[in-house]
Amino acid sequence: MNIELDESGLRFRPLRGVGRIEPGDDLAAILDQAAKESGIELRRGVLVVCQKVISKAEGRLVDLCTIEPSDEARRIAEEDEKDPRHVEIVLRETARVVRRGHRVMICETHHGYVCANAGVDLSNAPGDETAILLPVDCDASAKALLNDLEHRGAREIAIVVTDTFGRPWREGLVDMAVGSAGIEPISDHRGESDLAGRELQVTTMATVDQLAAGAGILMVKDSAIPAVFVEGVVPGGRGATRDMLRNPAEDLFR
Amino acid sequence: MNIELDESGLRFRPLRGVGRIEPGDDLAAILDQAAKESGIELRRGVLVVCQKVISKAEGRLVDLCTIEPSDEARRIAEEDEKDPRHVEIVLRETARVVRRGHRVMICETHHGYVCANAGVDLSNAPGDETAILLPVDCDASAKALLNDLEHRGAREIAIVVTDTFGRPWREGLVDMAVGSAGIEPISDHRGESDLAGRELQVTTMATVDQLAAGAGILMVKDSAIPAVFVEGVVPGGRGATRDMLRNPAEDLFR
Repeated sequence: MNIELDESGLRFRPLRGVGRIEPGDDLAAILDQAAKESGIELRRGVLVVCQKVISKAEGRLVDLCTIEPSDEARRIAEEDEKDPRHVEIVLRETARVVRRGHRVMICETHHGYVCANAGVDLSNAPGDETAILLPVDCDASAKALLNDLEHRGAREIAIVVTDTFGRPWREGLVDMAVGSAGIEPISDHRGESDLAGRELQVTTMATVDQLAAGAGILMVKDSAIPAVFVEGVVPGGRGATRDMLRNPAEDLFR
Repeated sequence: MNIELDESGLRFRPLRGVGRIEPGDDLAAILDQAAKESGIELRRGVLVVCQKVISKAEGRLVDLCTIEPSDEARRIAEEDEKDPRHVEIVLRETARVVRRGHRVMICETHHGYVCANAGVDLSNAPGDETAILLPVDCDASAKALLNDLEHRGAREIAIVVTDTFGRPWREGLVDMAVGSAGIEPISDHRGESDLAGRELQVTTMATVDQLAAGAGILMVKDSAIPAVFVEGVVPGGRGATRDMLRNPAEDLFR
């Protein structure tokens, strides 16, 4: 099942006024309220939510003061001029280190995502020594948020949870999906024809990543915009973002 | 210089009615006309254009019948079960083969882009044995299109030329920028603060790739939509997409 698109195109609308999220916060209530205050009806569209607010609400925070770095973490931290406690947390979140060099660790997380530092961010609040981890199961987090928003009246929506990743070969970061619910992560156009009756060449598009990237344009400058509602697309499907991870055995870069 | 964003968010609007592009066509005239017929004023926004129509207008087409494959092309074609003439064209467009396996060739093009088959597509028209190459200089193509559209009255716009690329680690394709004009490819937020006065952690965003991906949602299903106008973003800057290519010496995956 693929997404349906409106004729008029897409609108990406920022949810404003979300404020600071704390562990235990009811994120669905907060996002529902922010949508209302932003004049957005959560109906027929995709709500793109940055990972950080979900992780905070779920309490996926680690106080660096509680961490005793392993010998390996100390060794890497010394070589890369990093905080050994941060490296220790990264190693705990890592299933395998894919590459290390230029003071960067590219890690495969236990979920299977390949990204810098296994997705572990350090808080940017001064005096705050907290690490923010990815959710334990980003697809489950998306599904839970979708259910909670539906209980609050949202209809025909999907959730895409995003994080900001670097890429090989290109500078600059882009937002990518790390979790989703209510939408097929990949649109499969194999066997379909274009208007001229020719079979489509481009066959499988990473829809959730395209949505994440478009929404990311609005989420960059201002951490007060952790969610964007995309109108003009009618989601559907039961797939999860983990389904789009490539089998490592078929990956030329692992 | 970074992009400015409107408070209300972004609109991605498809240009309809472009039709089939032939070598020598005046693409600016065709896109200008399609915008008008789609009710779109090319003012204050970013016009995202898929590479294929630019390559066709520029005549970057090769008739496979004219190609005599080299021994290397024949060897690869036999191993990968491909058309040796296609492989020959791919090799001519390639500065270095980055990886080969699973019947895929990941190539660094002479421009410096890393992608499957050096960006060489085969036509999907039945009975048509034509290969479509990337423009010789995609940034120059973007700049020329921008100039031509400005002569036709477009104001405060930028051009992003896109192609559809696979990625390591994830299934599904996304649209990425291969050329641009009138916009900085990367938004640099280093030294800026968020609303709470904290320095932003996410510092350099690949704006042109985020625009390409968002627009790609609309360009997928129907080759009749080769261009999308993005409203809500005021472009600016003089950079080119080639500026965002990572220095191979600093790349962990080359």
